[in-house]
Amino acid sequence: MKILVINGPNINFLGIREKSIYGNQDFKYLLEILEKKATEEEITIDTYQSNVEGYIIDRLQEAYSDGTQGIIINPGAFTHYSYAIRDALASLDIPKIEVHISNVHKREEFRHISVTAPVCTGQIIGLGLQGYLLAVDALKQIVA
Amino acid sequence: MKILVINGPNINFLGIREKSIYGNQDFKYLLEILEKKATEEEITIDTYQSNVEGYIIDRLQEAYSDGTQGIIINPGAFTHYSYAIRDALASLDIPKIEVHISNVHKREEFRHISVTAPVCTGQIIGLGLQGYLLAVDALKQIVA
Amino acid sequence: MKILVINGPNINFLGIREKSIYGNQDFKYLLEILEKKATEEEITIDTYQSNVEGYIIDRLQEAYSDGTQGIIINPGAFTHYSYAIRDALASLDIPKIEVHISNVHKREEFRHISVTAPVCTGQIIGLGLQGYLLAVDALKQIVA
Amino acid sequence: MKILVINGPNINFLGIREKSIYGNQDFKYLLEILEKKATEEEITIDTYQSNVEGYIIDRLQEAYSDGTQGIIINPGAFTHYSYAIRDALASLDIPKIEVHISNVHKREEFRHISVTAPVCTGQIIGLGLQGYLLAVDALKQIVA
Amino acid sequence: MKILVINGPNINFLGIREKSIYGNQDFKYLLEILEKKATEEEITIDTYQSNVEGYIIDRLQEAYSDGTQGIIINPGAFTHYSYAIRDALASLDIPKIEVHISNVHKREEFRHISVTAPVCTGQIIGLGLQGYLLAVDALKQIVA
Amino acid sequence: MKILVINGPNINFLGIREKSIYGNQDFKYLLEILEKKATEEEITIDTYQSNVEGYIIDRLQEAYSDGTQGIIINPGAFTHYSYAIRDALASLDIPKIEVHISNVHKREEFRHISVTAPVCTGQIIGLGLQGYLLAVDALKQIVA
Amino acid sequence: MKILVINGPNINFLGIREKSIYGNQDFKYLLEILEKKATEEEITIDTYQSNVEGYIIDRLQEAYSDGTQGIIINPGAFTHYSYAIRDALASLDIPKIEVHISNVHKREEFRHISVTAPVCTGQIIGLGLQGYLLAVDALKQIVA
Amino acid sequence: MKILVINGPNINFLGIREKSIYGNQDFKYLLEILEKKATEEEITIDTYQSNVEGYIIDRLQEAYSDGTQGIIINPGAFTHYSYAIRDALASLDIPKIEVHISNVHKREEFRHISVTAPVCTGQIIGLGLQGYLLAVDALKQIVA
Amino acid sequence: MKILVINGPNINFLGIREKSIYGNQDFKYLLEILEKKATEEEITIDTYQSNVEGYIIDRLQEAYSDGTQGIIINPGAFTHYSYAIRDALASLDIPKIEVHISNVHKREEFRHISVTAPVCTGQIIGLGLQGYLLAVDALKQIVA
Amino acid sequence: MKILVINGPNINFLGIREKSIYGNQDFKYLLEILEKKATEEEITIDTYQSNVEGYIIDRLQEAYSDGTQGIIINPGAFTHYSYAIRDALASLDIPKIEVHISNVHKREEFRHISVTAPVCTGQIIGLGLQGYLLAVDALKQIVA
Amino acid sequence: MKILVINGPNINFLGIREKSIYGNQDFKYLLEILEKKATEEEITIDTYQSNVEGYIIDRLQEAYSDGTQGIIINPGAFTHYSYAIRDALASLDIPKIEVHISNVHKREEFRHISVTAPVCTGQIIGLGLQGYLLAVDALKQIVA
Amino acid sequence: MKILVINGPNINFLGIREKSIYGNQDFKYLLEILEKKATEEEITIDTYQSNVEGYIIDRLQEAYSDGTQGIIINPGAFTHYSYAIRDALASLDIPKIEVHISNVHKREEFRHISVTAPVCTGQIIGLGLQGYLLAVDALKQIVA
Repeated sequence: MKILVINGPNINFLGIREKSIYGNQDFKYLLEILEKKATEEEITIDTYQSNVEGYIIDRLQEAYSDGTQGIIINPGAFTHYSYAIRDALASLDIPKIEVHISNVHKREEFRHISVTAPVCTGQIIGLGLQGYLLAVDALKQIVA
Repeated sequence: MKILVINGPNINFLGIREKSIYGNQDFKYLLEILEKKATEEEITIDTYQSNVEGYIIDRLQEAYSDGTQGIIINPGAFTHYSYAIRDALASLDIPKIEVHISNVHKREEFRHISVTAPVCTGQIIGLGLQGYLLAVDALKQIVA
Repeated sequence: MKILVINGPNINFLGIREKSIYGNQDFKYLLEILEKKATEEEITIDTYQSNVEGYIIDRLQEAYSDGTQGIIINPGAFTHYSYAIRDALASLDIPKIEVHISNVHKREEFRHISVTAPVCTGQIIGLGLQGYLLAVDALKQIVA
Repeated sequence: MKILVINGPNINFLGIREKSIYGNQDFKYLLEILEKKATEEEITIDTYQSNVEGYIIDRLQEAYSDGTQGIIINPGAFTHYSYAIRDALASLDIPKIEVHISNVHKREEFRHISVTAPVCTGQIIGLGLQGYLLAVDALKQIVA
Repeated sequence: MKILVINGPNINFLGIREKSIYGNQDFKYLLEILEKKATEEEITIDTYQSNVEGYIIDRLQEAYSDGTQGIIINPGAFTHYSYAIRDALASLDIPKIEVHISNVHKREEFRHISVTAPVCTGQIIGLGLQGYLLAVDALKQIVA
Repeated sequence: MKILVINGPNINFLGIREKSIYGNQDFKYLLEILEKKATEEEITIDTYQSNVEGYIIDRLQEAYSDGTQGIIINPGAFTHYSYAIRDALASLDIPKIEVHISNVHKREEFRHISVTAPVCTGQIIGLGLQGYLLAVDALKQIVA
Repeated sequence: MKILVINGPNINFLGIREKSIYGNQDFKYLLEILEKKATEEEITIDTYQSNVEGYIIDRLQEAYSDGTQGIIINPGAFTHYSYAIRDALASLDIPKIEVHISNVHKREEFRHISVTAPVCTGQIIGLGLQGYLLAVDALKQIVA
Repeated sequence: MKILVINGPNINFLGIREKSIYGNQDFKYLLEILEKKATEEEITIDTYQSNVEGYIIDRLQEAYSDGTQGIIINPGAFTHYSYAIRDALASLDIPKIEVHISNVHKREEFRHISVTAPVCTGQIIGLGLQGYLLAVDALKQIVA
Repeated sequence: MKILVINGPNINFLGIREKSIYGNQDFKYLLEILEKKATEEEITIDTYQSNVEGYIIDRLQEAYSDGTQGIIINPGAFTHYSYAIRDALASLDIPKIEVHISNVHKREEFRHISVTAPVCTGQIIGLGLQGYLLAVDALKQIVA
Repeated sequence: MKILVINGPNINFLGIREKSIYGNQDFKYLLEILEKKATEEEITIDTYQSNVEGYIIDRLQEAYSDGTQGIIINPGAFTHYSYAIRDALASLDIPKIEVHISNVHKREEFRHISVTAPVCTGQIIGLGLQGYLLAVDALKQIVA
Repeated sequence: MKILVINGPNINFLGIREKSIYGNQDFKYLLEILEKKATEEEITIDTYQSNVEGYIIDRLQEAYSDGTQGIIINPGAFTHYSYAIRDALASLDIPKIEVHISNVHKREEFRHISVTAPVCTGQIIGLGLQGYLLAVDALKQIVA
Repeated sequence: MKILVINGPNINFLGIREKSIYGNQDFKYLLEILEKKATEEEITIDTYQSNVEGYIIDRLQEAYSDGTQGIIINPGAFTHYSYAIRDALASLDIPKIEVHISNVHKREEFRHISVTAPVCTGQIIGLGLQGYLLAVDALKQIVA
């Protein structure tokens, strides 16, 4: 089984940026726990991060033909306005889970709206880095 | 460890009501998989369902003194207007996870707003009954 | 044929409460004309009134298995915010008619919105207690 | 007793136009059942249909002096914006019932607002052509 | 000098319709005082009333070539939604005054918006039938 | 003189719940100061608390016939959406004062709207438990 | 007969300020034509201008006892937000006409709303300085 | 092949009305280029213009039975509020193209909303009279 | 103890202005009952009234250094838009109670919003002139 | 003559993505018909596609100096939020036509707003790939 | 060169009021640094502060004839609603810079809107008292 | 001292694009005056321009570790929707000043909202290219 994990803008600054919101663990740590999870679950987890909206769309389009069976995406701030990423997600007929590290509903009003959620299978919000691992568990069960 | 799972109005009609949205598995099946999960994880899972908003508040208030360490709540349609349940949740200083079986963001606009989410720790949406089990996993890790 | 007539909060205060809006006839009189109609039409009419939203949902759920073939509901003020009653109505695959005694469109703005109407078959508004009897006639024809 | 039944734009296309919404019975059939009802109830029912907003107002103004005792109006799409028809209705001091064949609350959002309802006595929605007959029954009782 | 006075829907029912708002004087009286004014001021006043929006546009288009030097228009309820009349008014390069008999700002909210006012020279509101005469005085001075 | 004091959902958790907002004094203390006030003022004060919206309506309806001369109500979160309680209050022709312990206008936006205030005589906000005692003083003077 | 003409902020800068909107005639000229009108009509016209909202209220309150029989007010920009002037106008039971020199409906959106118009008798808009004279004529007729 | 071209209110004033927006070519010229196009393409083009909303609906209803295979409509200002024309268009199962001569998105905000576009096949905006000819080309290809 | 009572625009017209809303007692009577209260409670009560927003701010700024320990303010219509008075209130670190004589929530919609309430300690609404006396009682207890 | 055709995000997935909306023909086919059109019309058509908003702006800026005489742009989802592309389009003084393959007005509400249309010459919507060819025809005529 | 610096309500309470927002430096200090700047730059700087909106308008009108060549204005809370000050600023054809000491965009939502900014040349926000000095520099360069 | 100046999309087209808004001076001139300022003030000024949102975020992230002590950013059209740039700015704990060359409050409504301003220290608007130099002065003083 092959899962693609996409992280949007500024998520590479985890552990640096606004620790009171996102916690102390950095982006490298996130990559490590995903790698560890992949080994444990005997699956492939590809990861991709970019601050460029269009590159995330490019990467999603690649998933159309590279054998990806499920997608985990934390679109960062693009969540709230990137209808282009929404369209790219909508064009893929595989399970997709949107993850947010913090509870966006506790924060600024603009973060309460997700334009990408309506084209995903589900959403996991506010459970920290663990959210990514739960999403892997969910995809495994859905695809199985 | 002791977890309380609360289900709001009409969720006892799972498998009966609108199967195209909620799937074929019934409410009894949900209770069974939660019981099985409790046994596997060696924890206590109390479940409660009511169609009465005030009884859900009563049950949440009991959790204040009965040793509950985490709450999983699917408030059903109360999600969208029960500020009274929101206040009851806010008064409890333990982790709380809101679960929705279907992806509410794909449905009617009124289901896009959750008045309870801002006072919960996190939210799991659209992953079917599995969402409850992932919430148990999440609570275990948060409380641990 | 079996019809269930549900009345929501404060409708038991008909003839007592705001007579300029609801008229002088009291709730007992409504029950009597429904009983009389049942006799005339040789059908069964069950009636239920509660001020508790959740009890109305409970009663609607019973209708799933007690042979009810049509529902007449005046949700009172719940009309304007009870998405929980809406969900309960939506889960029943029988004709449902929403009745309001007064012309809600002539009154406060919040009374212009019905969250339950979109899941009912039809609506009868502003025709006084006669509205219930017309709804019985309508259900008879639809079910026939 | 004399009742005027007014049908607005496109209702003459019943049975032709969008059958999944309005059913298979055509406009001629509606006129026939009204005629039959008039005979049964021994009353006069005048009918009028026009696609021209101003002609409907002209016809309503005639009702002021032609002995009409009650009005049944299905303003079609004019329901949602014709304040001019609203004013014409408001100037007549006789009972007026607004009828819609389909349940407008299940359809596009613009159909949820009626600018004419606030100046009518009542509204019957979603009960098909039977709605017109129920309106006749209601008017008879109100005028009686 | 030649002035065109246009009255929209239901204004021919003055003195009949809603006297508490529009007063007791009827439409014939309005025509008489305009005729008297024309004689006094030694000008020509053409009057036109219709309940049909399109006929009012037709009449406005005639004004383009019949020597009309000023327009007084009470669009009645069309004031609030007829962008078509607005366009017809905008295409005429002569002074235009919008008149309302009652103070629309004291009435329902929908009457507070005029879609025709932005393309008129001015507006006279709430001064009863006298408003038409003041508009004649104003046009005389503007054209002079 | 007989006054009914009604407290809505979660107010029984005073002194437990969110002390930074509601202060340290608990619900029992509130009952005690009301009892003391009753003794001092030589009046009867009945108190009722429920988390169930419908039970509060039931209790208000009892007040219709049990000699209650004034009502003090803190509807808690129901303040912001319970049109059903609003209707129950509106049907009682005695003075009614809405009390809020905290200054709701300093808190979340949804707390700025009260659907019950328009049918009460007055409102006392932000003055802590003292607000109830001031409401008793006010009712005494109004009823006297 | 005694009429009070009140001009609000910046109207003393007529002929200086934004001539493309307000024309070339200055405030002194306005005072002169009002004086001339008073002489012609054999009435008293008192005028008052202030940039201070509160002084305009003071002046309106004086009108309560100084024999003023009608008020003409151009509240300038206060038109759009001074609920305090609205209240002062509402407390006077004499005819009041609001005048605007320019057609406010052709200008910025905030100028389309008048908070004072609903408590005046009528409004004259967009007819230049002549609007004041027409208002005098109107008051004469209303008071007569 | 037979195409119907419908023009709404004021379009007969092309070349007269607001030339800075609509250009210098008049309505007669539009009819001529359509006639020429019909000859060139060896098809039938029927044209109809009216200022009366209801007559446009009448003409659309005729198209149901007169062999029309495609419709080009410029509803003029009716574009923005005529739900009645929308319903008439929706009842015809042939390709329909909405044309606007000017770029409505550059003009007043009310012109940005088209209530008829959602029931047409497509829209051509801002390309002058050429837009009609392009619409003919498009219909030919769709119908072919 | 020293309390400052500030009354905003038009409150000096109590008993003159709109008696159906504010009652028959005049402003002088309000000053007398406050004086009497001061004597009874053995405190100092300073009163100030102005129709000028800026003078109210000046008076509030004086309170910073004149020993005032609590403020009672009825900002009249300024309640609904004077962010300047809000800022002046916010700069004073003493208890402040906003008082309204009538129940503003029963009146026009613009009166439902208070821009000053969020920076006050509490609010007393709809209890007539007695509201001021209750506010004195409240301040005494808060300051004590 | 030289025309630039720009396609925004996900349009390279035509024929793959959501065929029920965009049809079966793929992006390569679009490029082929444009090439064929260029040959037929004896003009140059440059094409560019990118998922990156900024690269589209870069390409538009190149058009400033590379002899481009007309632009056809389908901004894809950027249509609805890219004010940056809008600014780039606005800075080019040549004809620009916005094309959408599907009828965006039949789809989700967010697709009804185009932030780029107000700075284009015109718009062609809902006519499939043919829309691009019609746009070429239109540009030829405008530039000619 | 002569510059006028106007400060609106409560700014005279700098250093006293809400120090966490506005800092510790008081109003006197602001006047001193402006005086020092005037000396350094060899220009005249007049300063004016008032809590009364109308006096600020009076002062702005004086600037019309006293040789003022540039204006720096911090309208305080008037920024958000004083259309009267906006009109006064608009009537002066000299450069005007609006200054805010704090970053208003970080504060309450009502502070995000400036009704005066659209008629000023520019705005300097959030740079503390230094903002006034930068505004002087800017005016010098613009006027030069 | 080291300052980073970031310019967003289309700003490299200064002097080419819309000169009536942005003036005649081109982007090269802006770079020159910044260079000259750096020399005069003996500081380092790095400049960066991109049309790609993500590259601007990349550059901001570099600033975290390259010794930058202050940022001047003109996000161009990204100002109005790039929550991603907002997040990048928020993650940097150094002073940041947003600059706009034109007065955005005089232009289209979408330009009145800045999503980046709430996370900057301050804003300078409408003062032309001088705005950048004033921002340098401001940063020097803040950092000093």
